[in-house]
Amino acid sequence: MNLQPAAVAKYIDHTLLAADASRAQIATLCAEAQQHGFYSVCVNSAQVPYAAQLLEGQAVKVCAVVGFPLGAGLSVAKAFEALQAIEAGAGEIDMVLNIGWLKEGLFDQVREDIARVKQACGATPLKVILETCLLDTAQKTRACEICRDLDVAFVKTSTGFSTGGATLEDVALMRKIVGPTMGVKASGGVRDYNTAVAMIEAGATRLGSSSGIAIVSNTASTSSY
Amino acid sequence: MNLQPAAVAKYIDHTLLAADASRAQIATLCAEAQQHGFYSVCVNSAQVPYAAQLLEGQAVKVCAVVGFPLGAGLSVAKAFEALQAIEAGAGEIDMVLNIGWLKEGLFDQVREDIARVKQACGATPLKVILETCLLDTAQKTRACEICRDLDVAFVKTSTGFSTGGATLEDVALMRKIVGPTMGVKASGGVRDYNTAVAMIEAGATRLGSSSGIAIVSNTASTSSY
Repeated sequence: MNLQPAAVAKYIDHTLLAADASRAQIATLCAEAQQHGFYSVCVNSAQVPYAAQLLEGQAVKVCAVVGFPLGAGLSVAKAFEALQAIEAGAGEIDMVLNIGWLKEGLFDQVREDIARVKQACGATPLKVILETCLLDTAQKTRACEICRDLDVAFVKTSTGFSTGGATLEDVALMRKIVGPTMGVKASGGVRDYNTAVAMIEAGATRLGSSSGIAIVSNTASTSSY
Repeated sequence: MNLQPAAVAKYIDHTLLAADASRAQIATLCAEAQQHGFYSVCVNSAQVPYAAQLLEGQAVKVCAVVGFPLGAGLSVAKAFEALQAIEAGAGEIDMVLNIGWLKEGLFDQVREDIARVKQACGATPLKVILETCLLDTAQKTRACEICRDLDVAFVKTSTGFSTGGATLEDVALMRKIVGPTMGVKASGGVRDYNTAVAMIEAGATRLGSSSGIAIVSNTASTSSY
């Protein structure tokens, strides 16, 4: 794939999800996203009002995480958080599915959990985080099937807060299951240009990373997300 | 302090907060809590309906975490999650305060965030998790002052999902700031009887642990929480 580093920018959700992120750091994140032409900034929902204010009238979207990073909140609470984040200015929602229910085979509950958040999102694109590092192949497959059937905007690999991040194999599997048109977001461990391009070649249409500048500058980064 | 291992049981919130906790594990948690006379089971909010059903009519309470573990959700969403968890059967709420706001000195916002959740809790006891490992002494002190002024039930050291857990020094500091009557919960790294007693001697009136059985049996545990 002949994708120049700067062209990767529009794939990137420029991400800062630390519990103790400051407003100054969020402001820097927003400024960097504008400067480099990243798709969005991805932040915790309490940061949405501030980020949305900073990016008002700009092309860069605000992406809010919901039920993050455990995905183990009540469905009604996850849906409400999504609704409130959108009202506060979020243009995309990244939710974590209920990993415990998925691993136990409680697929109707997994589906209902996602469906409730999707309903709250309305026309706002919803990404569903699988947390692939905790799942086996059958569980990843089933999660993608549920997301495909519910017609969410994206399946996403990882929170960046568990035991592992995106792998090329997982991205390829997710792409295979959801088909050619749905979004696939690779997140966690995507820290340089070569990894970013490999993820896109494997099927990713979005990249979650806190190393976006390193990626588009084609330099090394030491970030953990 | 002459506190026999079995007498420590009533101090313990028997805790399982893994993203992929199964219903079988929650059932075991509840059965163990009944058998050993722990104060509560502490679970993610999506587990509250099941745990409350299992413990109906029993003395063991269900404690639900809210805005967990980052504390970086919208205040209105944290309050809503608390309300829904209580309606689902939670008898105590453990919220994480907004760590970013605290570290930046946005104390009015920190106070308002906690106040909203407390209002949603009504008569249900609210514990406020400081995540002490991310704070300096002045920040810990200010957080305790805010919690004391808002008259919440407990201040709590840690989520168990960050870079460190409870220390004797932090528990003693928190006890000193909140005064003799408010609750102090030590959580994260409390895994054996000697540590449990030391935390109580330092001022803790509740212990959050996934090693409750090891504590009351006075045996070693390998758990990470």
